[in-house]
Amino acid sequence: MIIIMKAGAQEEEVNHVIQRVQELGFTPHVSRGVERTIIGVIGDERSLARSNFEVLPGVERVVRVLHPFKMASREWKQEDTVVAINGVSIGNGRLIIIAGPCSVESRSQLLETAHAVKEAGAHMLRGGAYKPRTSPYSFQGLGLKGLEILAEARETYGLPVVTEVLSPDLVPLVSEYADMLQIGARNMQNFALLHAVGKVNRPVLLKRGMMSTIQELLMSAEYILSSGNMQVVLCERGIRTFETYTRNTTDVNAIPALKQLTHLPVIGDPSHSTGKWDLVTPVARAMVAAGADGLIVEVHPRPEEALSDGAQSLRPENFARLVREVQALWETLRHIAVEPVTATTS
Amino acid sequence: MIIIMKAGAQEEEVNHVIQRVQELGFTPHVSRGVERTIIGVIGDERSLARSNFEVLPGVERVVRVLHPFKMASREWKQEDTVVAINGVSIGNGRLIIIAGPCSVESRSQLLETAHAVKEAGAHMLRGGAYKPRTSPYSFQGLGLKGLEILAEARETYGLPVVTEVLSPDLVPLVSEYADMLQIGARNMQNFALLHAVGKVNRPVLLKRGMMSTIQELLMSAEYILSSGNMQVVLCERGIRTFETYTRNTTDVNAIPALKQLTHLPVIGDPSHSTGKWDLVTPVARAMVAAGADGLIVEVHPRPEEALSDGAQSLRPENFARLVREVQALWETLRHIAVEPVTATTS
Amino acid sequence: MIIIMKAGAQEEEVNHVIQRVQELGFTPHVSRGVERTIIGVIGDERSLARSNFEVLPGVERVVRVLHPFKMASREWKQEDTVVAINGVSIGNGRLIIIAGPCSVESRSQLLETAHAVKEAGAHMLRGGAYKPRTSPYSFQGLGLKGLEILAEARETYGLPVVTEVLSPDLVPLVSEYADMLQIGARNMQNFALLHAVGKVNRPVLLKRGMMSTIQELLMSAEYILSSGNMQVVLCERGIRTFETYTRNTTDVNAIPALKQLTHLPVIGDPSHSTGKWDLVTPVARAMVAAGADGLIVEVHPRPEEALSDGAQSLRPENFARLVREVQALWETLRHIAVEPVTATTS
Amino acid sequence: MIIIMKAGAQEEEVNHVIQRVQELGFTPHVSRGVERTIIGVIGDERSLARSNFEVLPGVERVVRVLHPFKMASREWKQEDTVVAINGVSIGNGRLIIIAGPCSVESRSQLLETAHAVKEAGAHMLRGGAYKPRTSPYSFQGLGLKGLEILAEARETYGLPVVTEVLSPDLVPLVSEYADMLQIGARNMQNFALLHAVGKVNRPVLLKRGMMSTIQELLMSAEYILSSGNMQVVLCERGIRTFETYTRNTTDVNAIPALKQLTHLPVIGDPSHSTGKWDLVTPVARAMVAAGADGLIVEVHPRPEEALSDGAQSLRPENFARLVREVQALWETLRHIAVEPVTATTS
Repeated sequence: MIIIMKAGAQEEEVNHVIQRVQELGFTPHVSRGVERTIIGVIGDERSLARSNFEVLPGVERVVRVLHPFKMASREWKQEDTVVAINGVSIGNGRLIIIAGPCSVESRSQLLETAHAVKEAGAHMLRGGAYKPRTSPYSFQGLGLKGLEILAEARETYGLPVVTEVLSPDLVPLVSEYADMLQIGARNMQNFALLHAVGKVNRPVLLKRGMMSTIQELLMSAEYILSSGNMQVVLCERGIRTFETYTRNTTDVNAIPALKQLTHLPVIGDPSHSTGKWDLVTPVARAMVAAGADGLIVEVHPRPEEALSDGAQSLRPENFARLVREVQALWETLRHIAVEPVTATTS
Repeated sequence: MIIIMKAGAQEEEVNHVIQRVQELGFTPHVSRGVERTIIGVIGDERSLARSNFEVLPGVERVVRVLHPFKMASREWKQEDTVVAINGVSIGNGRLIIIAGPCSVESRSQLLETAHAVKEAGAHMLRGGAYKPRTSPYSFQGLGLKGLEILAEARETYGLPVVTEVLSPDLVPLVSEYADMLQIGARNMQNFALLHAVGKVNRPVLLKRGMMSTIQELLMSAEYILSSGNMQVVLCERGIRTFETYTRNTTDVNAIPALKQLTHLPVIGDPSHSTGKWDLVTPVARAMVAAGADGLIVEVHPRPEEALSDGAQSLRPENFARLVREVQALWETLRHIAVEPVTATTS
Repeated sequence: MIIIMKAGAQEEEVNHVIQRVQELGFTPHVSRGVERTIIGVIGDERSLARSNFEVLPGVERVVRVLHPFKMASREWKQEDTVVAINGVSIGNGRLIIIAGPCSVESRSQLLETAHAVKEAGAHMLRGGAYKPRTSPYSFQGLGLKGLEILAEARETYGLPVVTEVLSPDLVPLVSEYADMLQIGARNMQNFALLHAVGKVNRPVLLKRGMMSTIQELLMSAEYILSSGNMQVVLCERGIRTFETYTRNTTDVNAIPALKQLTHLPVIGDPSHSTGKWDLVTPVARAMVAAGADGLIVEVHPRPEEALSDGAQSLRPENFARLVREVQALWETLRHIAVEPVTATTS
Repeated sequence: MIIIMKAGAQEEEVNHVIQRVQELGFTPHVSRGVERTIIGVIGDERSLARSNFEVLPGVERVVRVLHPFKMASREWKQEDTVVAINGVSIGNGRLIIIAGPCSVESRSQLLETAHAVKEAGAHMLRGGAYKPRTSPYSFQGLGLKGLEILAEARETYGLPVVTEVLSPDLVPLVSEYADMLQIGARNMQNFALLHAVGKVNRPVLLKRGMMSTIQELLMSAEYILSSGNMQVVLCERGIRTFETYTRNTTDVNAIPALKQLTHLPVIGDPSHSTGKWDLVTPVARAMVAAGADGLIVEVHPRPEEALSDGAQSLRPENFARLVREVQALWETLRHIAVEPVTATTS
């Protein structure tokens, strides 16, 4: 941690800060420049609050030196984490595609979709049983019945299932039926829920909040990891910006940035990150080209009848084309052997 | 709902949309312009998903006509709602000030603060027992012990207490100790939690999410209202923007905008909306001048020792000055009789 | 400037950075922590590019210590700057109100408006002769004829005139007619134009760009000041965020933040910062309560006929009410003697 | 244009709006729903201001039906525009790569870079002679001398040159030396400059403003097209969001969105859209995979000595690798025959 004093900070103000650093068990390192005095704080700053120094007289600003996340970082674990979900591995050198409807609407709708996405080359099935909806008047999901339908589809088509869990008390039930638990974007900082999924033996798909920074996403992963569950996959699903032509803005930078910062696998969700079905395929290609380990895509046999997210759902035939295109790009990327660009060769 | 067809949409595409509108039990109203055909949908559109039309061939865009919220709207209830919290009324023509520390850190810290804010003129006490923290390594609150301390402070100083509830299973416990339940910004769209507080007989302080729109805030209020709890106070606490000099950007526009759109009381939180103690007082004045019904302010006897939010906490003497200033502005506003500016006199 | 090395940076990488700092004529100050080595750079960093260090092997991040602006800062000049515009002083302990139409549309429209705002208590007249419009098909202003009409209104009503200048070649002409030159939000980083207005002897009203940070606004002011023109007034006019209910988001935090960072006067533009006439008055009150030195407000005798910005223009009678309300608040603020909140009394 | 009346709008208010529509020469089309009355305005709405209706009593909201841009739209011209720049064609089924330093710093630096990028496979040369810099204390470019060096490099290496023009009066001079004129992000809404480049016979590279919407970018293109210059290439270069880990956020959605909305070619600038050299190559791949017609990339022989943008500049050997990777992806995309996804096959 580095404490930058104001221009003209008094000697006693500097001494007060130094004393405070020492009281907290850290070693101060003072550097007096032409216009500013700077005080370095030697020690593990993660246990220090920046704001406790910011309020001291004469202090202008406090800068952190370390990333606030630890177990999620590449420094803590250099090799890529591979997450295994009932026979499917994410982060293991193969592009994994998860597909299915936004919501489980009925047994026939889900089975029809599962069949179609399996045929088209998907490796896993998605579908919401408990739905977080902005409006209390919108369809809220089939609940337990939806979970049962998902489990049946898994048995029938051999596709591991990921579904969202909305509150801590539902974690045991959803874990019974699903192969992977999804934390939705709106719950990325629902810390009670992060703790709960950190305690179970189920892989977790953690979606980036639409208002969350890359660093906050990694801090939320840290909650799960530090609770004991190391099976976490991160998902870029678009952030909220001033642009309204699309539902969200795909932060494609985040994909290679996350691959540098963390050992956890990273997948992309082009359905939510665009909100428009006719942008899903080109953006899916972009995510794969940027280095994503997989994709999660909304597919519905009849989007015009979908109870949620119809506008961003692909018909099965368009999904099949998406799969062909991204797998072709993935093969090309493997052949041209995309090595990590290391700093020493900048 | 209005469906705008693409330029050059085929006659059969238009007919298909018309047919679909009728199938769903609504009346279509077709208007053929020079460059575009437009189809009005007559009926209560709140039960319709925009996206089910957006995917139909030939459709360019779908526009909602109605606000998606109902019970929270001024149309549903014209007169101001007054929320009563154990003897204190918000929205009743008096400026209400809630103050206290970010976190309950100890019995002595809380009692000292409660005493100070009472002396300075606060009407209610705030303090976090369960804390949502970005980092799993930060102080997470005293939990039940914190609730007990808050209850003791209420008895001693006669200040009703508001404190945050983080998950549905904690709602009964927190309701036992607190006079008002706070839904924090990160949980504004935690729908399971909104349902839970909608079922209890306790007033709710609903904070706007840092990247939530005014409309989404009202939709979250609608969850609580439609679950049966009409005692909701809204809080503007700053939104996330590109500006990094302050922790958040105070959306002061939201205060008069909300007063127009809804009958619910609206208060401001200048501590979170600035993140810097030396901006808190001027921004508190701005919120009151814009028409807020109250304020919630972080106060700590020794901000440099606070376990959370020290940088934005006021010392008691600065808080006392804030109270004097905002009460003086409030008196002036009452004297100049701020009438609502109505559209007919635009 | 502080250079933070990566965890595990090699000794030779550290030495390379040290050597580079010395080559550029600065003194390195090395501090080796538990996890990171940090290199302080002693000297006036304003002439250094952060990026030249960021690309060196082993470097993680580079942090600036100093504000990049100098002449605009409170450190450079502690006392408030007062800007005199043909008899009106901004920043001199009196609330100054500038009002008038968005565009000069005709002689009669401008004279009628000038008369009305003078009656209501305005101190200066605004009106656009050259209009920056998003669409090439919108009204682009009357040009020279508009300037002549503005000059006539000044003579008739004794109101100094501010009007926008759009390009460097128009600076001499506009300076001939106007008392103050406005740099619009879209031109805040039009550096050729900033240079041009920095060379003339006319006060400048510099509006914050809708995409610009507080620091960037001060850097743009620095362009004008360092070109020789010290008569600059800053204007907060709303920034672009994800909220679409209002045209822009009023960054009311920026008003007290700017008053701390700079000696230049700061005014607010509630018309552009809200975009809705019925929010203009409450937000104008908020700006004054936050410490603004003045306001600039759009007024039109018949907003429904305005050639631009009708939705945010006040009718004269509503403007008169705005003036009464903000002057009453200003008087109250003076009586309660708002002293600057200084850091030593945090 | 569609005018939505408030719930409970009076009959006389509705009639007043109808009358106003007729006075302006348009045909009103009234539709009375259960909760709202809606008035369609039949005619070319581009000449109407939304705000003139928004201020009428009883009006809640006004919605545009048509895109405000015309000549830039796919409706106006369905086939792709090909822009020819001194022998190089953009938009003609070949991936075009523009490369070079941020600034022309010296003759030897530019010639060395031009040689390197030519060898690596670039088709055009970029380099700034006039530099828009946030700080007046930063390097402002070599001016005319920079233009002369660029022209020499073109002659030596056969690479057409693109360089930025900062103000209308410089357009003739820069047009004399450069093959293509760049409008920088900060000048995207410098309408005087857009008019000026619209009058010359030189292709224009129009960069999206960092806080401009897709629609505003197209409106700025419309300024150039409607001034008579049809040779415009659009460039996505990242937008400003709350994420600070990267300099900007690459809006990769904008690439396929623009390809749908307009006939103009679209290229990507991964250097500015990331701000970090080690993210440039993966994001360049993403832009190409999303459908970009080309790229513009910053390359410097020694980024640690660059006078601007060092942190985002690639060394020549890394640029060569970028070219190999994006050309391989481009070949793959051609083979899998990416057909436009049309709405009728949604």
